[in-house]
Amino acid sequence: MKRIAVYPGSFDPVTRGHEDLIHRTLRFADRVVVALAENASKSPLFTVEERVRLLTTVLAGDERIEVQSFSGLLADFARRTKASLVVRGVRAVSDFEYEFQMAYMNRQLWGDLETAFLVPALNLTYLSSSLVREVARLGGDVSEFVHPEVDRALRAKFAK
Amino acid sequence: MKRIAVYPGSFDPVTRGHEDLIHRTLRFADRVVVALAENASKSPLFTVEERVRLLTTVLAGDERIEVQSFSGLLADFARRTKASLVVRGVRAVSDFEYEFQMAYMNRQLWGDLETAFLVPALNLTYLSSSLVREVARLGGDVSEFVHPEVDRALRAKFAK
Amino acid sequence: MKRIAVYPGSFDPVTRGHEDLIHRTLRFADRVVVALAENASKSPLFTVEERVRLLTTVLAGDERIEVQSFSGLLADFARRTKASLVVRGVRAVSDFEYEFQMAYMNRQLWGDLETAFLVPALNLTYLSSSLVREVARLGGDVSEFVHPEVDRALRAKFAK
Amino acid sequence: MKRIAVYPGSFDPVTRGHEDLIHRTLRFADRVVVALAENASKSPLFTVEERVRLLTTVLAGDERIEVQSFSGLLADFARRTKASLVVRGVRAVSDFEYEFQMAYMNRQLWGDLETAFLVPALNLTYLSSSLVREVARLGGDVSEFVHPEVDRALRAKFAK
Amino acid sequence: MKRIAVYPGSFDPVTRGHEDLIHRTLRFADRVVVALAENASKSPLFTVEERVRLLTTVLAGDERIEVQSFSGLLADFARRTKASLVVRGVRAVSDFEYEFQMAYMNRQLWGDLETAFLVPALNLTYLSSSLVREVARLGGDVSEFVHPEVDRALRAKFAK
Amino acid sequence: MKRIAVYPGSFDPVTRGHEDLIHRTLRFADRVVVALAENASKSPLFTVEERVRLLTTVLAGDERIEVQSFSGLLADFARRTKASLVVRGVRAVSDFEYEFQMAYMNRQLWGDLETAFLVPALNLTYLSSSLVREVARLGGDVSEFVHPEVDRALRAKFAK
Repeated sequence: MKRIAVYPGSFDPVTRGHEDLIHRTLRFADRVVVALAENASKSPLFTVEERVRLLTTVLAGDERIEVQSFSGLLADFARRTKASLVVRGVRAVSDFEYEFQMAYMNRQLWGDLETAFLVPALNLTYLSSSLVREVARLGGDVSEFVHPEVDRALRAKFAK
Repeated sequence: MKRIAVYPGSFDPVTRGHEDLIHRTLRFADRVVVALAENASKSPLFTVEERVRLLTTVLAGDERIEVQSFSGLLADFARRTKASLVVRGVRAVSDFEYEFQMAYMNRQLWGDLETAFLVPALNLTYLSSSLVREVARLGGDVSEFVHPEVDRALRAKFAK
Repeated sequence: MKRIAVYPGSFDPVTRGHEDLIHRTLRFADRVVVALAENASKSPLFTVEERVRLLTTVLAGDERIEVQSFSGLLADFARRTKASLVVRGVRAVSDFEYEFQMAYMNRQLWGDLETAFLVPALNLTYLSSSLVREVARLGGDVSEFVHPEVDRALRAKFAK
Repeated sequence: MKRIAVYPGSFDPVTRGHEDLIHRTLRFADRVVVALAENASKSPLFTVEERVRLLTTVLAGDERIEVQSFSGLLADFARRTKASLVVRGVRAVSDFEYEFQMAYMNRQLWGDLETAFLVPALNLTYLSSSLVREVARLGGDVSEFVHPEVDRALRAKFAK
Repeated sequence: MKRIAVYPGSFDPVTRGHEDLIHRTLRFADRVVVALAENASKSPLFTVEERVRLLTTVLAGDERIEVQSFSGLLADFARRTKASLVVRGVRAVSDFEYEFQMAYMNRQLWGDLETAFLVPALNLTYLSSSLVREVARLGGDVSEFVHPEVDRALRAKFAK
Repeated sequence: MKRIAVYPGSFDPVTRGHEDLIHRTLRFADRVVVALAENASKSPLFTVEERVRLLTTVLAGDERIEVQSFSGLLADFARRTKASLVVRGVRAVSDFEYEFQMAYMNRQLWGDLETAFLVPALNLTYLSSSLVREVARLGGDVSEFVHPEVDRALRAKFAK
């Protein structure tokens, strides 16, 4: 039986931290479905289409990885994709309360769904999409934190 | 002397977690004033009137419980209602900093006002109004987390 | 009906922080039973008898306060004293996990027992018996943090 | 390829919380090696042999579960058992710092080893071996928190 | 060599807590540059000009203190002002994750820049600009938490 | 005026994390006094003399760094060395409560003493003396986390 893990997020945009976590997940899952939550952020920098395109480019070449966007409940999406596991990165205490809320709610809404928290690479611990957006917006160099294609997309967004 | 406790919140909407906390408070207080802060949330799902009506329906039948909305400072409201205690639920670390800020500020603004943090029922620990709104908005079943009347009101809001 | 609160601890020794919390509790309880857990600490500085004596001296003069030592479970002790509430001080995040464990376990062992966490006076927030012992042991002045009688007892312990 | 997860601990004694986590792990791993760290606790209540025996009794009947004790580094043990994953339960903020230290150290000592943190059943969130020992020592009823065999062993230990 | 520290913030408005931290910094720095981040808050109560004016008034009379506003990255601003240190106040756990993110990002963007977290005066621990704004907006007395000039400016803002 | 910082600890043994922090401190202090607290740990692995010797070896060659051991209160030691600053490393949430307690107590005991928390290098964030001792005791390789001289001393301690 194939073991499928769902990795949900808004990926606005995908960072080296997300990539790292996806590859870690493949150490114990047969397939990872990267699940872009369409209505997670209110005023995203990139459209859903742009974010899917960037994810697809960045993650190309490994057929165990699939990118999908979804609306509605994560628990319903996970059921449709026959996933047995939701994977999330942990960064110390940040948002842990929120993560627990979601984990329990998902279990409540679909009993078979487990959530596993993974530890990112140490040098990516404090990386987040919002930090990347903020630094890029202020003209900082984020090329170390994102794929070159994402770097280009960020420069295009903030260029005048 | 009657011991009056104030239980403040935005109750957008009232959940089973709020009900639980109110009944716990009645174990050591003679009366609980459920105090809906009118200007707490910026764009609430339910209007102040709707929220008061839902609270009144959900909490009907126990005359030790009173529902009021208020604007202005909680410390002033508590003084007017002759409360000696503010009651708040604690959920692990979430918002603790904020809770402490408010507790100290209330004490500063009105020295006689104590804040007591209570522990919710274990199965309601991770419940919150915002989580209920979020799940209901995405079409999930929240009937376990709210009173049937609130469930109906949520369905009406999100129905098209 | 009298409302009785239990305030448990090892009080090794009682500090100004404990005194503060006891007086706060009296704002909404009719009586406070200060409950010294006999087997809480493994190698206490003061014996149970010394700690009871110091508590009694420090808290003398208010007949709403009673000092008792107990062995066994707090839930059993609370039931015997007909308390409806356990009171604990909170100091930011410290030991919160432990406090929650105890609160849930006490509720499990005796369903009627609520735990209320109170916020100490701001200038006593970071005070603890172990810190007082440590500073006194190293020859520091702790007269601001404890009752004069406790200060004397500490000096006697660490004198040579 | 079989996916093997290691679940390390001191299991002094095994609780319903540990059992819950082991069964959750089997939702995405083919095999779980329950790894009793021999030198983890300094003065354990049960000997290594007793703890292994209790674990074996409690977990009997599912051949995907194996109980082993080990000394030395977890990373070395995991390598020998060809595990790709270490599984740990998370309880809000408790010991998170420690857990992260261990996760990074294990990755450092053996690069292929991932750590996944799982969320226990809500009613077992605040359960721990040390709490069980403490309550049993004080004569409380822990039959809800441990397997009947463990309950018996605890009563035998604390009987006189 | 002069040791220059940068103290960044949005100062909307400056509080007694900020003043306290600036004077603490002068115990080990020769000069403090108070750095108002122009684009930090989305809809500030006071304009950048108003905030600079209030800071200048409040901090007048000590020529080791300089007030500047800046846009762009803090790391770039710190480089231009030849600062070797960024100073931040810590308030228990609040925003610590965010603070670490910024500290690491600033170090990444400019390797020579250290961040030092200082502990505010105990009675100012829970003070923040947003709490001051909130209380003032609701008609509360904040004269204890801000300089008289700031108090006047707040009253003017919220007067009708 | 020379700016002197005290960096206290038990250094049992000194790690690359301590070295990192000392060098960071020299970016804004003229001199660092590494202050070994003689009675901090109850059963240390290395004697005070061994720890002082290792510190001296590891930190040799920079005359701005001085190693001293002390008994009694840190506040008294700092006063004698004319330090204006105590420096401590922060590791996310770990021991923060304890650190705050000490910072406030030191300020109380000697008003002029500030505490600054510094952020270690990212790859050293989760490093601690106790983790190093633990791994070395179990036969793991800690050469990456400590100076070669410390590595040798650890091997000698744990050799049979």
